[in-house]
Amino acid sequence: MSIDDDVEIRGQSVGLVEPQSFTFAAPPEPMLLESGETLGPVTLAYETYGRLNDDRSNAVLVVHALTGDAHVAGRHSDDDRKPGWWDLMVGPAKPIDTDKYFVICSNIVGGCKGSTGPGSTNPATGKPYATDFPMVTLGDMVRAQAALVDHLGIERLMSVVGGSMGGMQVIEWALAYPDRVASIVPIAAAARQSAQNIAFDEVGRQAIMKDPNWNDGHYYDGQAPASGLAIARMIAHITYLSEHSMREKFGRRLQDKDAYGYDFGTEFQVESYLRYQGDAFIKRFDANSYLYITRAMDYYDPTTRYGGGSLVAAFERLRPETRVLVISFTSDWLYPTAESKEIVRALKANGIPTTFLEVPSNYGHDAFLLPNDLMESAIRGFLAAVAKGGRR
Amino acid sequence: MSIDDDVEIRGQSVGLVEPQSFTFAAPPEPMLLESGETLGPVTLAYETYGRLNDDRSNAVLVVHALTGDAHVAGRHSDDDRKPGWWDLMVGPAKPIDTDKYFVICSNIVGGCKGSTGPGSTNPATGKPYATDFPMVTLGDMVRAQAALVDHLGIERLMSVVGGSMGGMQVIEWALAYPDRVASIVPIAAAARQSAQNIAFDEVGRQAIMKDPNWNDGHYYDGQAPASGLAIARMIAHITYLSEHSMREKFGRRLQDKDAYGYDFGTEFQVESYLRYQGDAFIKRFDANSYLYITRAMDYYDPTTRYGGGSLVAAFERLRPETRVLVISFTSDWLYPTAESKEIVRALKANGIPTTFLEVPSNYGHDAFLLPNDLMESAIRGFLAAVAKGGRR
Repeated sequence: MSIDDDVEIRGQSVGLVEPQSFTFAAPPEPMLLESGETLGPVTLAYETYGRLNDDRSNAVLVVHALTGDAHVAGRHSDDDRKPGWWDLMVGPAKPIDTDKYFVICSNIVGGCKGSTGPGSTNPATGKPYATDFPMVTLGDMVRAQAALVDHLGIERLMSVVGGSMGGMQVIEWALAYPDRVASIVPIAAAARQSAQNIAFDEVGRQAIMKDPNWNDGHYYDGQAPASGLAIARMIAHITYLSEHSMREKFGRRLQDKDAYGYDFGTEFQVESYLRYQGDAFIKRFDANSYLYITRAMDYYDPTTRYGGGSLVAAFERLRPETRVLVISFTSDWLYPTAESKEIVRALKANGIPTTFLEVPSNYGHDAFLLPNDLMESAIRGFLAAVAKGGRR
Repeated sequence: MSIDDDVEIRGQSVGLVEPQSFTFAAPPEPMLLESGETLGPVTLAYETYGRLNDDRSNAVLVVHALTGDAHVAGRHSDDDRKPGWWDLMVGPAKPIDTDKYFVICSNIVGGCKGSTGPGSTNPATGKPYATDFPMVTLGDMVRAQAALVDHLGIERLMSVVGGSMGGMQVIEWALAYPDRVASIVPIAAAARQSAQNIAFDEVGRQAIMKDPNWNDGHYYDGQAPASGLAIARMIAHITYLSEHSMREKFGRRLQDKDAYGYDFGTEFQVESYLRYQGDAFIKRFDANSYLYITRAMDYYDPTTRYGGGSLVAAFERLRPETRVLVISFTSDWLYPTAESKEIVRALKANGIPTTFLEVPSNYGHDAFLLPNDLMESAIRGFLAAVAKGGRR
């Protein structure tokens, strides 16, 4: 069964969609960031799908992972080669059903996909911010999204849904705006990065910053630190797959040859895959955004920000009727099930109605981006229950 | 209990030791390599400890991991800050007891610790080989060690012991020279690298080769690709630790600060650790050797070389009385227990007397280098049994 076959069966495409953007916090009223610095104006790229109902109660915000963007579903033009990054989840009759829900997908501050980030023009200088861009946090990203949600005239979101770093934004949404979310769905996420995750991020950042083209971030009028960014992406890609999926996908198979070449060219299929992933990524992502966003992920810690060191105490802020669906994947070693369970336990300790689903999958962390009956039906059913306003 | 305290209790140091070297395969009779190329002369750095007995039956060869060297125990001078890399295992009354055994530790061809490698002078040009150095395999490394063992007048080794890549050399020793090993002890190893291991190695190699100072390997009269090598080492270090040990050792603790600096300097302790590991490594290792040795590890596959694709068939070469002790560590995710068990199953399928020990440890792959009662007593007991010539 190919992924495409699978997706086709489960619903229709949202069709053509239009990229949108929203700008706010223009000086003299810039956004005050968690670091104490200010940023403005701030632009967020976003897309919407479906129709907001009359009482504005059917809005679902989808937030994305580290290198994602606002284009979650559909195509921008008829000849787009690929649809949005979670097209399998968002569309008519799909789990996040655009016949029923008004779906918003927002990009993040600090990114490079149409939102204000280090590659944007610094109004003070007329040049790209580069590393003069202030450090942004996941809290800042979510507060910017809240301004977008205000702009769309939505007081309360029916749900906030996201995987990986999206799942961390989901948690921040619930903590920063407990009155504005009826439900949350953090997927393949942790409340905060483990030492191992920080370590992988740090090596990626070092690879970028040690690239001579990085030039302290001021490379926009020259060569980008493509080598460093490719290395960072290759490292990250290993963490997105499971040992099992790498074995199945590549094993020790050689790339277009029957015997070793005894040189440093591509010998194994897994090498070819990683080199390709690195090379493809540098065409679509800005190295400085990679630095800022990974840093924001590593900084994020709701226990210190909201709970005096305790996740249970942090979740005391939630309204008791907030509904939660937490999803993890058995072979995800970047955000293992144990870390999802930590979230679940802290929610349950506060009496928050929480459903936990550990999905059997061999695809590692990437599993949340791939078709999966269990994940899809769980999210479909959860949103339907929230929409009905059913309580346990 | 500190590691030093622990080591002191279990035996004495071998004291001062003398680095030695052995040169062979001088042209016109160079060594024919697995790749079909030739290399000569070949120098191997080695050290010996203890005394060869009269019937030359008490020799134990210790082989080292990726970045190790021939200096396994003792000190080179009284003011040496640290002893050899496995001092806890090798010495009088230690598990590999130099009062009983004649211990040899050999460096490898391709390395940079006194043996012929890419940094050595190419006799054809008078300059360092750099990437004109021929590709060497684990088979080549072991054949060079066999020449050293010949030179020492030893027909048959009582045991060959090694961890990580050393464990792979141990396996190659048994397969290439089944009549010359009475026993083998592969520790924290696999018969061949998994796709994930090849992937980590490949990212490290790419980091080196994308460093502009690498210059296709010809950097010996200029700047070494220190940035790339540091990145490679940082990646590798993450794989040597377990998630658990990183959590215990660093968690999310900040480095010498109470609050985030909101910059790209060192924020977390784990970042400081990795940066230190990277910086320390570039002072003691040659980037080209890192390329050649990781390539050799990735190439190594006894199933194709000796077994027509089957590890069981490969081990048919072993003499039925060869004794084997296989050791793995519970938290080692680089060479997980499942891969050790594959070795054990293939040996047992051939009726080879094999003892398997999975040592409980939270230290990840690095565990084999750290004090561990269970590992130490197992190796001590195993070698004593082999020395007695006892059969099951």
